[in-house]
Amino acid sequence: MFLDRLRIPIVQAPLAGGPSTPELTAAVLEAGAFGFLAAGYKSVEDVAVDIAALRRLTDAPYGLNIFVPDAEVDPDVFADYLTEIAAEAYRHGVTLGKPRHDDDSFAAKLDLAVAERVPVVSFTFGCPDAATIERLHRAGSEVWVTVTDPLEADDAGTGGADVLIAQGIEAGGHRGSFVDRDDREDYGLLALLQLLTARVDLPLVATGGIGTGAAVAAVLAAGARAAQLGTAFLRCPEAGTSVAHREVLMGSGRTRLTRAFTGRSARGIENRFMTEHSTAPVAYPQIHHATAALRRAGRVAGDPDVVNLWAGQAYPLAHDRPAADLVATLSHELAGALTTAARLAGDLAPG
Amino acid sequence: MFLDRLRIPIVQAPLAGGPSTPELTAAVLEAGAFGFLAAGYKSVEDVAVDIAALRRLTDAPYGLNIFVPDAEVDPDVFADYLTEIAAEAYRHGVTLGKPRHDDDSFAAKLDLAVAERVPVVSFTFGCPDAATIERLHRAGSEVWVTVTDPLEADDAGTGGADVLIAQGIEAGGHRGSFVDRDDREDYGLLALLQLLTARVDLPLVATGGIGTGAAVAAVLAAGARAAQLGTAFLRCPEAGTSVAHREVLMGSGRTRLTRAFTGRSARGIENRFMTEHSTAPVAYPQIHHATAALRRAGRVAGDPDVVNLWAGQAYPLAHDRPAADLVATLSHELAGALTTAARLAGDLAPG
Repeated sequence: MFLDRLRIPIVQAPLAGGPSTPELTAAVLEAGAFGFLAAGYKSVEDVAVDIAALRRLTDAPYGLNIFVPDAEVDPDVFADYLTEIAAEAYRHGVTLGKPRHDDDSFAAKLDLAVAERVPVVSFTFGCPDAATIERLHRAGSEVWVTVTDPLEADDAGTGGADVLIAQGIEAGGHRGSFVDRDDREDYGLLALLQLLTARVDLPLVATGGIGTGAAVAAVLAAGARAAQLGTAFLRCPEAGTSVAHREVLMGSGRTRLTRAFTGRSARGIENRFMTEHSTAPVAYPQIHHATAALRRAGRVAGDPDVVNLWAGQAYPLAHDRPAADLVATLSHELAGALTTAARLAGDLAPG
Repeated sequence: MFLDRLRIPIVQAPLAGGPSTPELTAAVLEAGAFGFLAAGYKSVEDVAVDIAALRRLTDAPYGLNIFVPDAEVDPDVFADYLTEIAAEAYRHGVTLGKPRHDDDSFAAKLDLAVAERVPVVSFTFGCPDAATIERLHRAGSEVWVTVTDPLEADDAGTGGADVLIAQGIEAGGHRGSFVDRDDREDYGLLALLQLLTARVDLPLVATGGIGTGAAVAAVLAAGARAAQLGTAFLRCPEAGTSVAHREVLMGSGRTRLTRAFTGRSARGIENRFMTEHSTAPVAYPQIHHATAALRRAGRVAGDPDVVNLWAGQAYPLAHDRPAADLVATLSHELAGALTTAARLAGDLAPG
């Protein structure tokens, strides 16, 4: 089990969609924590380039995150929404992208992971089938699956996952739900960890709104083996986070869940686009492709009002600092937090 | 500071609306934790009776929770909603209650708290004015104020609160927000604790979805001085929880936020009434009074579909057991969780 050998129980989240770079992941790995490269949204060739770049920077074991494809939805589901947002695109001098369904080159990315014998392969938006997990195991890879509720945890456990990444509602970016639907409970991280600990026997990595070493200590106390942080790394100089995104991360806007940018529920800092398009349908990745040019235009023009400003609820606690400094600070805070908690617990008999 | 003398860093939440009893609070206090009586919804005379009953059972310091009155809303806001739910009442052989505004005898309950020199007075739905807090301080009371976001924490700090009860979105029952509105962020507990720790200098008591000693350990690590648990106590034999409520707490329904029963956002286990009346307005306590007879009829008839089944997200982890056993189990688990976390953190340098 890879987690058994992790010196610092901190994991850098994949951060697909721009912030992920080999430099960021290498810095985290070299600092003694664990880190993921993001395969999501990239071509297989670009992912291979990232892996090669990472290998030049460090020989530490690393992770690769792959998106599990969503089922295709009927174009009727999103036709009205496209009409609604077309005017936005026009005002920004771009046209909407083709709202195509694709699988983000799932099979080819799996082939790459197997060929590269990636030490840890994590999945978001679902659990791959048993044959895929078995194939990764044969290649020497450990399989981590993102879950957001106890039912997904059951499925991932049955499916053969080695580790569950338990994602709370506080998390920035996409919810990792297997299916994006409104009739499932939105668990806060601490409640989710307790429910999963009582239910499944797999090691848990906690993620969602963790921005301090105190919160890392908290999730370890709640039963996780490590804490995965995403937003905390967005302002590192090694990250590929856009300038428009970085500037809003220094502000104080509230975050909320939205489907406006991608057709899948994700948490970001509220901006005009989110507010004005609050009834976006579930249609991923069609809406993602439709809005891609518009979001790019916003980033280029420095107009954050049409950019997906992914951020978790603890984003105001993030700072501009190198990833190695962040890891060192977090592990220092973590140790201090556990000492303080032990003092508060006083002379209670250990369980 | 009262928290400095607390042997077990666990607080039993007030549990207004039925579950609160002097027997429950006395059992918790005698077990070495802290507990609140609920003044909410009761007459001043009944609160005085509860305090006298508690005093006969234990001389340990205790708390009393008081609701801060909401501003009155225009009856136009809830007229349509009353029409919508009148048919429900009719089907259950009752009529809707008068949707009156009241202040839950706020002034008289404060007078009682002062006269009784209640050791800790906590507030929900707002922060009392400075003169009120000063008066309680002169009577020897400590003042704890429930907050759900950093802005409320600022206000409570400025207002003179001694301790903040930080309530996460996971919590069962009413959100303690000063004003119930949709444009404030719904923080998960762990994110909220980090943000408040960085912002205010007051001691924090954490609440929301805490059902195990591991979660108590987690909130201590995250910077809280104690954990307040509500749902965990609902199935204790000493609690006044209705049979209909207890039965649903043994099931596996999902929880969500609703205003359907009271006109104020609260978390409960989903039932037909919540599902069918999902657009209830913000109008508290008018809707509370309107639905009171209907909810009572549901409890009497054992029909949980019209009862407010308040529960936090960790409710499946609650059990039928005496409050003293629960406190002992939680403190045992707490100590064990901190030991485990310290082992995972290994030889990291303390911060």
